[in-house]
Amino acid sequence: MKKIMLIIMDGLGDRPNDKLGGKTPLESAYIPNMNRLVENGIGGMMYSVDQGIVCGSDTSHLSILGYDPVKYYTGRGPFEAMGLGIMVRQSDVSFRANFATRDENNIIIDRRAGRLDEDPGDLCKALSMEIDGVEFIVKNGVEHRAALVMRGSNLSDKISDSDPHSVGKAPGTIVPKAPEGKFTADVLNKFLAKSRDILQNHPFNKKRISEGKLPANEILVRGAGMTPNIDPFQSMYGMTGGYAVGIPMIRGLANLIGLQEIKVQGMTGSIDTNYKGKIKAAVDGLAKRDFVLVNVKAPDVAAHDKNPILKREVLERIDEAFYPLLDILEDTVVVITGDHSTSSESGEHTGDPVPIAIASNEIRTNGCTRFDEKNCGISSFRIYSRSVMQYALQLSDRAEKYGA
Amino acid sequence: MKKIMLIIMDGLGDRPNDKLGGKTPLESAYIPNMNRLVENGIGGMMYSVDQGIVCGSDTSHLSILGYDPVKYYTGRGPFEAMGLGIMVRQSDVSFRANFATRDENNIIIDRRAGRLDEDPGDLCKALSMEIDGVEFIVKNGVEHRAALVMRGSNLSDKISDSDPHSVGKAPGTIVPKAPEGKFTADVLNKFLAKSRDILQNHPFNKKRISEGKLPANEILVRGAGMTPNIDPFQSMYGMTGGYAVGIPMIRGLANLIGLQEIKVQGMTGSIDTNYKGKIKAAVDGLAKRDFVLVNVKAPDVAAHDKNPILKREVLERIDEAFYPLLDILEDTVVVITGDHSTSSESGEHTGDPVPIAIASNEIRTNGCTRFDEKNCGISSFRIYSRSVMQYALQLSDRAEKYGA
Repeated sequence: MKKIMLIIMDGLGDRPNDKLGGKTPLESAYIPNMNRLVENGIGGMMYSVDQGIVCGSDTSHLSILGYDPVKYYTGRGPFEAMGLGIMVRQSDVSFRANFATRDENNIIIDRRAGRLDEDPGDLCKALSMEIDGVEFIVKNGVEHRAALVMRGSNLSDKISDSDPHSVGKAPGTIVPKAPEGKFTADVLNKFLAKSRDILQNHPFNKKRISEGKLPANEILVRGAGMTPNIDPFQSMYGMTGGYAVGIPMIRGLANLIGLQEIKVQGMTGSIDTNYKGKIKAAVDGLAKRDFVLVNVKAPDVAAHDKNPILKREVLERIDEAFYPLLDILEDTVVVITGDHSTSSESGEHTGDPVPIAIASNEIRTNGCTRFDEKNCGISSFRIYSRSVMQYALQLSDRAEKYGA
Repeated sequence: MKKIMLIIMDGLGDRPNDKLGGKTPLESAYIPNMNRLVENGIGGMMYSVDQGIVCGSDTSHLSILGYDPVKYYTGRGPFEAMGLGIMVRQSDVSFRANFATRDENNIIIDRRAGRLDEDPGDLCKALSMEIDGVEFIVKNGVEHRAALVMRGSNLSDKISDSDPHSVGKAPGTIVPKAPEGKFTADVLNKFLAKSRDILQNHPFNKKRISEGKLPANEILVRGAGMTPNIDPFQSMYGMTGGYAVGIPMIRGLANLIGLQEIKVQGMTGSIDTNYKGKIKAAVDGLAKRDFVLVNVKAPDVAAHDKNPILKREVLERIDEAFYPLLDILEDTVVVITGDHSTSSESGEHTGDPVPIAIASNEIRTNGCTRFDEKNCGISSFRIYSRSVMQYALQLSDRAEKYGA
């Protein structure tokens, strides 16, 4: 049995770009190690979820890991919370939240507290508390946005929002939408009452008022979502696993399915990450695990910045870091691919398929010798993201036989 | 309308093998007739059930014949019985069975009767009987293993096991798990009581006891399974059909869907089979039928023996036998493929796709000129096993129009 290394270069695929003479960043990059990987295996194209689907990183990573996003990507609450760096757990209830401004008559006069131009991290900390055995965790995102997670026993997402969804109204009292939501609604109402005192009197808001700004004296919550009941990776595949991932949402997902964190010095989840350190740590991490997931976010960042030149440079730096992968093919199935394509022209995700190489010693090769959109596109190999793990499993001689 | 010849070379696909200079057995074999077939048609790769699935012969044959294994491969009972050569029928109830040793206090002291080192075929014959209109058929497998089939009206698989699943206990009385199981439980209890007398006094066991061996004086049954309610081949496809198949499980399956046996002299279901006689009989069999299924087991046997050289030789002998196929392309769609890949390195089934050629006169060809993993892999044609019959049907101008 071999081990499996799954490396996802975020936003890997692209479209022909004028700034690169009509080539994609990958087509114009110098990537000898990726090319050697595809030569030593199967090269082709992966469809994220389905042909023509424009995936987010969340849905695509779920699917590549073998978890059907239709089943597990139910509410966005837990994924938003993971995206803000909260390691959500099974049976947590997560909410999207806004810092808002409430006047002395208890009326919401701004649902965004003036689009907060200051980091409300201290407010979030002040709202961390425990009530009736339920832990409340608040993390802020961009501007006024935040996430709230309730952690405890007997919680339910069958409750209403406090967000009135328009100004000129009082924040709503949380009511259960089903009998099992009563406890959660009661505890959350207690939290919201306490939070009003804390926020009103917090130095952060006193300062804002003194500066003539709208205070963030209310936290509006909406879209309660229970963490999906997701099978642990190890019980699905019979493999122990780790992850070297910088971006919070995928870290949260990896943590949720029970993968263990592999610490990497200088990992940022952006352009300036420590590419070599990350791949080395991932390879070293295979010594005591059967599976390692790596996500390198930088290509997606460069493409969102509409910078094809930078995306090409980033891909070349990743390729350099891939050198150690060539030495582990004897006992490892190495999969390199992306989660989706991101156009460096528009700066947006696209539904174009993503190059994939599945490399290992002693497996069939399919004559694909260059890892890019053009050559992987000419190759006949096509795979849907949902089959990637199964394909790697069978090549690592880990798949169970179906039948006799 | 053309006829259809479907030839399945068991365990056809393989992986690159050092003993063959890094080629697969098929890639290194001299197979001019297979190559002429693929030249005269469409060459590509078939996924058995799905990408990366490691199929058994049973699930794969079901799927290639157009029967969804998820629906029909429910319990293994009927398939185990077919594998031991019992031609199970609709509404039969099949069991896995063990010959076991029971002491004078009615306690099971060995669930495997000392792993029987003698052929208990005579015991099986002695247990063949009819009770209350129900026929009992017993066939032995490897060592202590056997299958029991009950054949009659109003039978049900909603009954318990007699197997206590551990030693030190008495064999269980069969009890119904639902009201409709009562008759079956009653008749089976009568059979088990009679079988104890027959087994205890059988010369086979008297001899064992005199030699100080554990007698096979109890037959433990478990896992009652009703034959799946499977549509006859003829009503599914509007074609009469026959089979030239050596291995018991696939013979049982072919028989179950109503294909007629085509007798072949010297057919063994192994390496020493009469390849030419089998293909000739299959071709002759097309004269009075619309469809013939052939299974040649030998490549799988050679691969399970980890003998790539032998597998190559076997493929060359099959190729020689294929000569008559070139003469029937005018009025026949000939499909040659495998049910799954089997690695001659590991001796195990793998989930790698299997080469397929669909040949006939006056159909599109796709430029594939060699029938092996490399060339069929480079070709762009991909098909899932579930679509093979439909594809052959439409090429034979037998498919019904979907829509107007």
